[in-house]
Amino acid sequence: MNHLLIVRMLSSILLVEAAALLPSIAISMLHWDGDTMALVQTAVIILIVALPAFLLAKPKNRSMRGREGFVVVALAWILMSVFGCLPFLFSGFLPTFADAFFEAVSGFTTTGATVLTSFEHMPHGIAFWRSFTHWIGGMGVLVLTLALLPKLSDRTSHLVRAESPGPSLSKIVPKMGDSAKLLYLIYFFLTGIEFVALILAGLEPYDAAIHAMGTAGTGGFSNYGDSVAHFNSVSVEAIMTIFMILFGVNFSIFYFIKEKDWKDIRENEELKWYLGIVFGSILLLTVFLLPVYGTFGESLRYASFQTASIVSTSGFATTNFDLWPVHCKMLLLLLTFIGSCAGSTAGGIKVIRVASMIKQTYREVRHTFQPRKVQPIRFDGKVMDESTLHSIAVFIFTYVLLVLGGAFLISLEGKYDLITNFTASLTCVSNVGPGFGAVGPAGGFSGFGPFAKLVSSFLMLAGRLEIFPMLVILHPAVWSKT
Amino acid sequence: MNHLLIVRMLSSILLVEAAALLPSIAISMLHWDGDTMALVQTAVIILIVALPAFLLAKPKNRSMRGREGFVVVALAWILMSVFGCLPFLFSGFLPTFADAFFEAVSGFTTTGATVLTSFEHMPHGIAFWRSFTHWIGGMGVLVLTLALLPKLSDRTSHLVRAESPGPSLSKIVPKMGDSAKLLYLIYFFLTGIEFVALILAGLEPYDAAIHAMGTAGTGGFSNYGDSVAHFNSVSVEAIMTIFMILFGVNFSIFYFIKEKDWKDIRENEELKWYLGIVFGSILLLTVFLLPVYGTFGESLRYASFQTASIVSTSGFATTNFDLWPVHCKMLLLLLTFIGSCAGSTAGGIKVIRVASMIKQTYREVRHTFQPRKVQPIRFDGKVMDESTLHSIAVFIFTYVLLVLGGAFLISLEGKYDLITNFTASLTCVSNVGPGFGAVGPAGGFSGFGPFAKLVSSFLMLAGRLEIFPMLVILHPAVWSKT
Repeated sequence: MNHLLIVRMLSSILLVEAAALLPSIAISMLHWDGDTMALVQTAVIILIVALPAFLLAKPKNRSMRGREGFVVVALAWILMSVFGCLPFLFSGFLPTFADAFFEAVSGFTTTGATVLTSFEHMPHGIAFWRSFTHWIGGMGVLVLTLALLPKLSDRTSHLVRAESPGPSLSKIVPKMGDSAKLLYLIYFFLTGIEFVALILAGLEPYDAAIHAMGTAGTGGFSNYGDSVAHFNSVSVEAIMTIFMILFGVNFSIFYFIKEKDWKDIRENEELKWYLGIVFGSILLLTVFLLPVYGTFGESLRYASFQTASIVSTSGFATTNFDLWPVHCKMLLLLLTFIGSCAGSTAGGIKVIRVASMIKQTYREVRHTFQPRKVQPIRFDGKVMDESTLHSIAVFIFTYVLLVLGGAFLISLEGKYDLITNFTASLTCVSNVGPGFGAVGPAGGFSGFGPFAKLVSSFLMLAGRLEIFPMLVILHPAVWSKT
Repeated sequence: MNHLLIVRMLSSILLVEAAALLPSIAISMLHWDGDTMALVQTAVIILIVALPAFLLAKPKNRSMRGREGFVVVALAWILMSVFGCLPFLFSGFLPTFADAFFEAVSGFTTTGATVLTSFEHMPHGIAFWRSFTHWIGGMGVLVLTLALLPKLSDRTSHLVRAESPGPSLSKIVPKMGDSAKLLYLIYFFLTGIEFVALILAGLEPYDAAIHAMGTAGTGGFSNYGDSVAHFNSVSVEAIMTIFMILFGVNFSIFYFIKEKDWKDIRENEELKWYLGIVFGSILLLTVFLLPVYGTFGESLRYASFQTASIVSTSGFATTNFDLWPVHCKMLLLLLTFIGSCAGSTAGGIKVIRVASMIKQTYREVRHTFQPRKVQPIRFDGKVMDESTLHSIAVFIFTYVLLVLGGAFLISLEGKYDLITNFTASLTCVSNVGPGFGAVGPAGGFSGFGPFAKLVSSFLMLAGRLEIFPMLVILHPAVWSKT
């Protein structure tokens, strides 16, 4: 293990986090409701810890292997959350570490699950920081660091792969640092458009920023207890629905649009599956909701917002969908597993994996009556590697195992019913936010004890980093000298 | 497709079913409570349908390919259930086809889920037939047919593979017909010991037979509404616990015992995993139940019976475990997924598959920091084929997809809560029987409509045949001429 390089990388990331506190400090000074010092204190502590490390750690060998990449990513996300939760603690807004850490992890992993029970007295700077973690976490803290400090290491592809290891993610331009910048430019641009659109729809700039950042990161934090239902505005919901769907798309699609590369968009199979799932589910849910809302228009309104919110793993709500008929909830449960496209800011198993698994199941059936025929599986017209297919299948097993194992651990507190415990685990691993029962859209994680909150935090991190980085750092051999 | 051979095989299987009605007819004549005619009528109808087909279909070509094997198995199990449900219909005991078919499928697939709400007026012959289907279904109707008529086809290995395709099942003696006979001998012998033991523990011979057959097939039908709790006998529970665990073991282990082949038993890795899961879960559940039952003895009593019942996918109950604390229920839910050993009479994903997937997950973690090292996966000391491992992973995806898809379809009726719909699907696919909520041990499937009952029947059959035979017959290419 190249320890000096790891220290160098981690300290750089923390310096970026200190810088990321500046907008929240500015906001808190604008509103001056008592949270400025908490944010400043956090920034100072990060500087005290990270600056000496950054200055002293000068690795001669800058080459990075896969192992270091995973370790850096896993530790970076844990450290970001440990320091990122300090404003909640210092301001006294969330006085226990388990609560503050949960909320920070939920922010960075863009889950949007919350331990808050009252939203009324949230200071503006704290609320902005809470949503800003969504915005940073959505694209990835390492991608941000690479965009700002591209010369950190020679082989940064390991890092980006470890942070957002969707099977189809690739460098969109030759240099990783340039790719990172380009991605953030697109991200910034789209967030900006949504911000302006929400202001035009009648929101205050502050609310518009909070919800644009929550949408962009597919996070789901709102500064209101009743989430987006607070605005009761069809145009706000429509804007957010469109942008939630957009942020679930692989970002290379936006690059293709910029380059007017229509051929690559037309041939993108994951996009077709994704849009099929989104619009198929909206249609189905609209039909299911007709008896609830009476008119087609109202049903479509709630169905499209909630489908977009769950598929994109945002988790915003315009109604307490836990009160919907059971088949509506079952549909949302299925969507919670799937999530959005690889290379997007969203979580879940990812459409490309589910699609390739369905093709593999179909092949297994055909194989039964044509056992000797070689049947390659194609995606985007290209034959997929068998070992990649095998890895995807193992990933999905691990995903389900993590959800079930997490549910078991959470249930050890002996609280709530099966569906609360099960969907609490699932919604954390999938980075959605709300589940059903006590963790439904009208509830949250506040009722759980510290143990369940720490387990949930681990599940959110594991889900965001696609599991293996979090398992790798648990493996003793990684820490051995050989 | 070799249609004549398929007809020949299916008609033979139905003739065996007609013969299998004889014990129930004898029992009904002994008790004479009005169900004899229903059973006789069923046998006559089967003879009218199957005998001419058996006599007329004389295939010249007796070679069987994998495709035919799967089609025969899938159709055989559907036909067995269609005809096997006639006694319930004719006797007026279950007057609708959906109910009668569900109960017959639940019997043959050894699920043990029931639509009965009252057990008091069940005629003895009908009740015996209901449990006899467990006994036949546990070992496999095709294995039975091959034991009786070994010369049906040249390559019967396809059939046995399709009916019980556990990854490690192999012919234990060279000739498949001899293997089938041997398996049934062991099966008959073990059932007989349990029958005698239950009588010695104080049960009436009739009750002992019902529960011995239910245990042997890992089914779970009881002739009492409160299942095994009816007897309130520690010795009955202990006997059944031991035999439920035994019937979850791969049957080749019993052959090894008979042959005094201790080496093969010692090296059997699946057995170690299985016993580890069983005794680990019993220990954990006993600890969990201490606050409920107060004493270690009582906790152990309920924990061991219920663990054995769920792991073996029997589904007997000695208490309404739906009222247990949530972590106890979560543990049982996990066990419902896993099931027992391949090559046993039990359902579920099977221990060998889960164990090999956990090894694959572990390999994926190690692969992260040792990407160039070839890391084969061993089982019983032998390297497992990568394509087998890949198939296992795809199987588990399909299993989870079937559970979730089934839950969605069942929920379309709009009845009950999420956990009822979800566990109804899971318990059917895993062939366990009870789930939680309305389908818990104190409830059943009677409240569902015909649609959910037919979906559940499909799920039970798919689970028993390990999914692919049921998918193959849905594939149009199987029915095309080319």
